Amino acid sequence: MTVNHEPPQNTDAVHAVLLSIGDELVLGQTVDTNTAWLAQRLARRGIACVRHETVADDRALIAAALRRAARDARLVLVSGGLGPTADDLTREALADAMGVSLELHEPSLNQLLKFFKRLDKPMPERNRVQAMCPIGATMIPNAHGTAPGIHAELKDEERETSTHVFVTPGVPREMKGMFDDAIEPRMQAFTGSADTLLTAKVNTFGLGESDVAQKLGDLMARDRNPTVGTTVSDGLCSVRIRVRHADPATAARLRDETIAHVEAALGAVCFGHDEDTLQSALIKSLHDKGKTLATAESCTGGLLGSLITDVPGSSNVYAGGWVTYSNAMKTSQLGVDPGLIEKHGAVSPAVAEAMAQGARTRSGADFALSLTGVAGPGGGTEEKPVGTVWIGLATPEGVTPYLAKLTGNRAAVRDRAAKCAMQLLRLTLLGQDPLQVRWVTKPDASDTLAS
Amino acid sequence: MTVNHEPPQNTDAVHAVLLSIGDELVLGQTVDTNTAWLAQRLARRGIACVRHETVADDRALIAAALRRAARDARLVLVSGGLGPTADDLTREALADAMGVSLELHEPSLNQLLKFFKRLDKPMPERNRVQAMCPIGATMIPNAHGTAPGIHAELKDEERETSTHVFVTPGVPREMKGMFDDAIEPRMQAFTGSADTLLTAKVNTFGLGESDVAQKLGDLMARDRNPTVGTTVSDGLCSVRIRVRHADPATAARLRDETIAHVEAALGAVCFGHDEDTLQSALIKSLHDKGKTLATAESCTGGLLGSLITDVPGSSNVYAGGWVTYSNAMKTSQLGVDPGLIEKHGAVSPAVAEAMAQGARTRSGADFALSLTGVAGPGGGTEEKPVGTVWIGLATPEGVTPYLAKLTGNRAAVRDRAAKCAMQLLRLTLLGQDPLQVRWVTKPDASDTLAS
Repeated sequence: MTVNHEPPQNTDAVHAVLLSIGDELVLGQTVDTNTAWLAQRLARRGIACVRHETVADDRALIAAALRRAARDARLVLVSGGLGPTADDLTREALADAMGVSLELHEPSLNQLLKFFKRLDKPMPERNRVQAMCPIGATMIPNAHGTAPGIHAELKDEERETSTHVFVTPGVPREMKGMFDDAIEPRMQAFTGSADTLLTAKVNTFGLGESDVAQKLGDLMARDRNPTVGTTVSDGLCSVRIRVRHADPATAARLRDETIAHVEAALGAVCFGHDEDTLQSALIKSLHDKGKTLATAESCTGGLLGSLITDVPGSSNVYAGGWVTYSNAMKTSQLGVDPGLIEKHGAVSPAVAEAMAQGARTRSGADFALSLTGVAGPGGGTEEKPVGTVWIGLATPEGVTPYLAKLTGNRAAVRDRAAKCAMQLLRLTLLGQDPLQVRWVTKPDASDTLAS
Repeated sequence: MTVNHEPPQNTDAVHAVLLSIGDELVLGQTVDTNTAWLAQRLARRGIACVRHETVADDRALIAAALRRAARDARLVLVSGGLGPTADDLTREALADAMGVSLELHEPSLNQLLKFFKRLDKPMPERNRVQAMCPIGATMIPNAHGTAPGIHAELKDEERETSTHVFVTPGVPREMKGMFDDAIEPRMQAFTGSADTLLTAKVNTFGLGESDVAQKLGDLMARDRNPTVGTTVSDGLCSVRIRVRHADPATAARLRDETIAHVEAALGAVCFGHDEDTLQSALIKSLHDKGKTLATAESCTGGLLGSLITDVPGSSNVYAGGWVTYSNAMKTSQLGVDPGLIEKHGAVSPAVAEAMAQGARTRSGADFALSLTGVAGPGGGTEEKPVGTVWIGLATPEGVTPYLAKLTGNRAAVRDRAAKCAMQLLRLTLLGQDPLQVRWVTKPDASDTLAS
């Protein structure tokens, strides 16, 4: 075959290329989270990304990537490589791509001096380079750190196009602050005429991706507008909805109609939209009913409590919990009969019940969830393989043990176990069948006897 | 300026391009973790990435990205877009880039039928597409899911080059299994002659990036081999070391010497290498001394316990803990005097001390760590702003309160607080000064009185 470099089609709307700079990213030592955040922000404004690219701390490679990006998009957002150290080369590479040199920008230097004065430290000489600006570009103040950002225009005379390049530091907090404060407002000037591109996610837990696809049926037809797709991440299956329309109101209506169709097709396993988490949905359900919760964790070691208290305001419905990692703690802190542990093992429906009951009684909460299982990698047996987790749910009416059979590594088993527990309680609070969660069963008599 | 597409320099060694396919990635709805994993695996074999690229579920864009990648690298790893649904288009795009059509691959179809038979389900008709293979390519069996991978060679007759393309599913578990089982062995054939590229990380917690750079001094000179750089992620500052050398033994020696220099310059804040975590380092220290730990958490809500029990085998040194999120739980479960809470507030050195003392006594562990603070976004006051966290450390000798002044959002404050607590105990166990952690101070008498 002959390899050709093809510019992307559909050049009526503003497209963007996102560039991330850093050896630690190219080497895989750090996972890039900036790009996903920026892509979401651009999507909200109706700007689609042609692609994301990650480039090493190499002046020539960065300059080449900037030129390639400027060829393919009218907007290029670059993050990283503006620090004070010798491996920070984005500023120099941008000057190379513009065909200019760097000059000192006095206001930025003054900002830097002020920044260090506030810290009661002299400015290290190496930070001076952060006040250097490619000639013809403008600096963007950084309210959250030392490195100012840079805004430049790369003009392609042959094609008569012009591309706006914004460079921010790679530190997520500084990048996000700078995007909100300075870059998004400046983008207004040249992105006004784009189609509205709206996206939404419907988040589910408890079904596999192919179950979801089956239930969605024709909603997932490729030529539909909005388009509907599915993504699995950390055991959650999200339904992605994406609509493009010239009229913003129509786009919003089409999106909302599709959300309603998706939710009707999937039912109560849908726990929220967009950034909603299972824990925030559970807390909302508890809050709506005026009920409180306590936890008793063994194999998850505090993960369930940690997830629940991720949510600001969780203290209104969450009393607290126990991490009874050792059997002695199960007995001394939750009153689990040592005879039960000896007879059935710590990973058993009887112990899950006793843990949940003990947590409910001792905390005074309305509900308690307990978890005891084999997270791996060691500790599995033929009878109780890695991934076997008993979940106890104590309610004002009594206590029920559920068996979750999970797969994956230690982190996956712990994460899915905590999520199963939250979805079990959430569905119970909503009066829905908790066994909709596909990994979960109720033991029959033989299970209980066997364990 | 004129925009040119420049191929990368230094074409003696095998370079790679990593392509990730998926709307959810381009839209930022999912953070791509595959790429970092693959980049690390390639780096171990001495293969550097020219770049990473992320492309939407669009047949033409994927085909263009494949052609562009084949122009710039001799190895292209693609993940995603092999699923059974209509938005999975990588297989078609690869056929387009090769200039061929798809044909049914009977052995893959038989594998699929077997896979569904094991699940006691009929194979949905839509899964049949997963057995389609571009003519001239070979299929790679998938031991962990339905979609086989694909191995193809893209030849550029003009340049007389040939590029190996490997396509895997996007599901991390399936991708990783396929890389280890099939792709890495096949890569042997054409990556034998490359320079050895070795990387290492020295992980630190407790210093800022500029403190680290200052202490490292000339080790960070740009022209040094190995190169030394720093990266900050989640409060950890990692020192990245990267060496390239024709002789593998020399490369390893140079790397190890530089690791030793870095550790000598930074001291006990270095807690490990590469994938070592602060929690695994703490558990190792406890294990080495034969000591046990319990935890009592308020603002972190179980996060500290969850981090500690992330580590397999932590049950040997971790008894368990309490999530005393409500004041009532602090009193009923840890014996914190309600008068102390009333007088000093729950966020105070007195309550941190009482929580740690209560956890140590009631668990019977040698050490106990407690955390009580203002994680935000609400709850801050002028006297105790968001980010104020008191950490209690109870030892056989007594109990000490430490004050951590942290910045960032709720998740950052909780994460840094748990890390400060772990590093405080680790440094104490090593007989090192715990106040090396820059965010932490010991209260003087006035702090204690004020709170």
